[in-house]
Amino acid sequence: LAQGSLADVRRILLKMEPADVAHLLASTPPRHRQVLWQMIEGELESEVLNELNPELRLEFLSGMEPSDLAQLAATLDDDDVADILQQLPDRVTFEVLDAMDQQDRSRLEQVMFYADDTAGGLMNTDTITIRADLTLDVVLRYLRRHEEIPEMTDNLIVVSRDDRYVGLLPLRTLLVSDPSHSVREMMETRQAPIPVEMPDDEVARQFERNDWVSAPVVDENGRLVGRITIDDVVDVIREDADHSLMSMAGMSEEEDTFAPILKTARRRTVWLAINLVTAITAASVINAFQGTIEKVVALAVLMPIVASMGGIAGTQTLTVLVRAIALGHIHQKNQLWLVQREAMVGLINGVIWAAVVAVAASLVFDDWMLGGVLAAAMVINLITAGVSGALLPLALERLRIDPALAGGVILTTVTDVVGFLAFLGLATAVYGT
Amino acid sequence: LAQGSLADVRRILLKMEPADVAHLLASTPPRHRQVLWQMIEGELESEVLNELNPELRLEFLSGMEPSDLAQLAATLDDDDVADILQQLPDRVTFEVLDAMDQQDRSRLEQVMFYADDTAGGLMNTDTITIRADLTLDVVLRYLRRHEEIPEMTDNLIVVSRDDRYVGLLPLRTLLVSDPSHSVREMMETRQAPIPVEMPDDEVARQFERNDWVSAPVVDENGRLVGRITIDDVVDVIREDADHSLMSMAGMSEEEDTFAPILKTARRRTVWLAINLVTAITAASVINAFQGTIEKVVALAVLMPIVASMGGIAGTQTLTVLVRAIALGHIHQKNQLWLVQREAMVGLINGVIWAAVVAVAASLVFDDWMLGGVLAAAMVINLITAGVSGALLPLALERLRIDPALAGGVILTTVTDVVGFLAFLGLATAVYGT
Repeated sequence: LAQGSLADVRRILLKMEPADVAHLLASTPPRHRQVLWQMIEGELESEVLNELNPELRLEFLSGMEPSDLAQLAATLDDDDVADILQQLPDRVTFEVLDAMDQQDRSRLEQVMFYADDTAGGLMNTDTITIRADLTLDVVLRYLRRHEEIPEMTDNLIVVSRDDRYVGLLPLRTLLVSDPSHSVREMMETRQAPIPVEMPDDEVARQFERNDWVSAPVVDENGRLVGRITIDDVVDVIREDADHSLMSMAGMSEEEDTFAPILKTARRRTVWLAINLVTAITAASVINAFQGTIEKVVALAVLMPIVASMGGIAGTQTLTVLVRAIALGHIHQKNQLWLVQREAMVGLINGVIWAAVVAVAASLVFDDWMLGGVLAAAMVINLITAGVSGALLPLALERLRIDPALAGGVILTTVTDVVGFLAFLGLATAVYGT
Repeated sequence: LAQGSLADVRRILLKMEPADVAHLLASTPPRHRQVLWQMIEGELESEVLNELNPELRLEFLSGMEPSDLAQLAATLDDDDVADILQQLPDRVTFEVLDAMDQQDRSRLEQVMFYADDTAGGLMNTDTITIRADLTLDVVLRYLRRHEEIPEMTDNLIVVSRDDRYVGLLPLRTLLVSDPSHSVREMMETRQAPIPVEMPDDEVARQFERNDWVSAPVVDENGRLVGRITIDDVVDVIREDADHSLMSMAGMSEEEDTFAPILKTARRRTVWLAINLVTAITAASVINAFQGTIEKVVALAVLMPIVASMGGIAGTQTLTVLVRAIALGHIHQKNQLWLVQREAMVGLINGVIWAAVVAVAASLVFDDWMLGGVLAAAMVINLITAGVSGALLPLALERLRIDPALAGGVILTTVTDVVGFLAFLGLATAVYGT
């Protein structure tokens, strides 16, 4: 890229698929990114925007005029435009809506009415609907009058006279059935429509479980309001999974890999601050035992082992729970079993590794008492890690706090504090101050 | 569940969708799980198996007879059967293959020939192919002769006389076009077919970028061998994302949330053992500075802060890189930029928090020298964390070691060792032993 002349780069860019251009932009450090973006024009521009991750998209859009934005919006999917407008300042949103034509605006306002993370925010309004009393032959002729059928259309949606959802007619069925049959005879009614208020992660689970390509969305009166397609669901799945991964390290799933230095530093610094509180809490526990450490310096050598093993065991439990919650595997009935299992796992692994470490430490420091204290502290800390690693995410989930985000910090605080307290406390009891 | 009689449970089970039964099994602790599984019979059994996560599926299957397995296999998708057979012991696999009819066997052997994590392992052989010289009218009549069109068929695949891939005819196009046109006139040739050896994560990226529902798979001679559908791709996306999350805590993405106690303990213990090595390495660094700690006990209080801040900062960088590698955002050209950025971010955040902590420590312990040593050690450790958090996954990736799995342990070892070494080393230089 660096070598070729700008004209060359431009020619190559304009020949690429929009999705590939978006990928290229996402993989490019900031300085080159702006140069590349300037070269993209017209229809390609809107198609590339449609493929970009939300953070980058917002960055590029915030540099544009409202009238240009309105023009752009006409070429994007409803749900994507709604997402974009919701991220822009209110003033800009109104200007963009004003600059749109009547039809685009009213369709868009319908989608924007629903929260971004619900079925309503995911849906498009480009449905093809038919009545149940038609014959397949009529349906085929009706379709032929269309210029084109929207992408990802695997079913025609059967609705009643007052627009209530009735069933689905798969194109697969339409193509192999006798044209003289009626829609009513051939339609599928087993697939329940998606309520417009359903959270997007539940929508994704339904798609995954049932292998849908598209699904109809209905309002509280059973009226068809739109449809959700698998491409948007794949984005939800990717984002949710990303969310768990990134949150565990205190970052957002929208984080841009190639964000500039200052932006990156500012974002990460918050997490460091929060963790500093954890670290200082742990340090003040140690501080209370200065006398004991002065007497037996080996304690200072061994104490990080107790804390770190607890942290690792706790993180494992936490990760399993965070994933299980995200997959919808956790219910009232199976929670207790999980907490008990984690306690038992903590006990078993605690005993095994406590024995190993205790024997090693006793030999190195020639002090069997020290080994005993170390072993006891490790068992206590690994059981604590298992139980709190399981209880914490369950409790946070109930308090509607994201367990992936907050779980790790609180857990480490617990395992550090309990680890140091158990080890140094027992040591004080044994050696005195 | 616990209250109702078994007959009630059974009646409810048999009315549920297979995907919902699979979800129920995955959310149930082991004892009840076996009871539920016993109740599922006939066709439902194979459909539920198809929806189960691999670990659970294997558990249920390993209790079955080869002849039952062969019968089961006939009702599942090729790629799923191939996956299952590859996990079973070779002896059982051969018995199952022997018990199958000729046609099933040869189709299956074709899919099993390819590795599970390539396009070949993901594909099904249920394609509908047509010739380019037909008219759409003939195609429509040809389709009507089918009993049914395979699920997730959004395109008919156009092939030449010798089975080479030529293009795609979307059903959407077929339904709205003039039936007198030829396939050649209306087909899409822009979508490149997927080579059978393409890794599954690359297949998933292609699907995500291009919003495909299905895609044709060709061998090295351009001959059509099958097609991949979005439902299997969604599983790959979910598994890959899961893999990053679970690996960071030393677990497998196939880990069953409700695995029994001993199985769970055995699996987790390996990771604890590996981390114990880390912890002991860090402890031996501290051990070398016993003299200094005896002189200034405050060092023992403050040293975990240095190590933990380094660990957190490094984990953030590592997580960003692991995700970027999984998304395919990293190339030769942008690596250096990333490493430099992470070093700068480490420097900036290091200076900020070093200043805060140093002032606080100086006041608490009434020793400005101690604050200075702490600040210097923190800056050194945060820069190290940034650089090694970025370099490590890149290096591991090049060595074909999974960065999500190995990265965390090595990184913590580095930040612990550098943290303790910098802090205690500088302290020794300042205070003497």
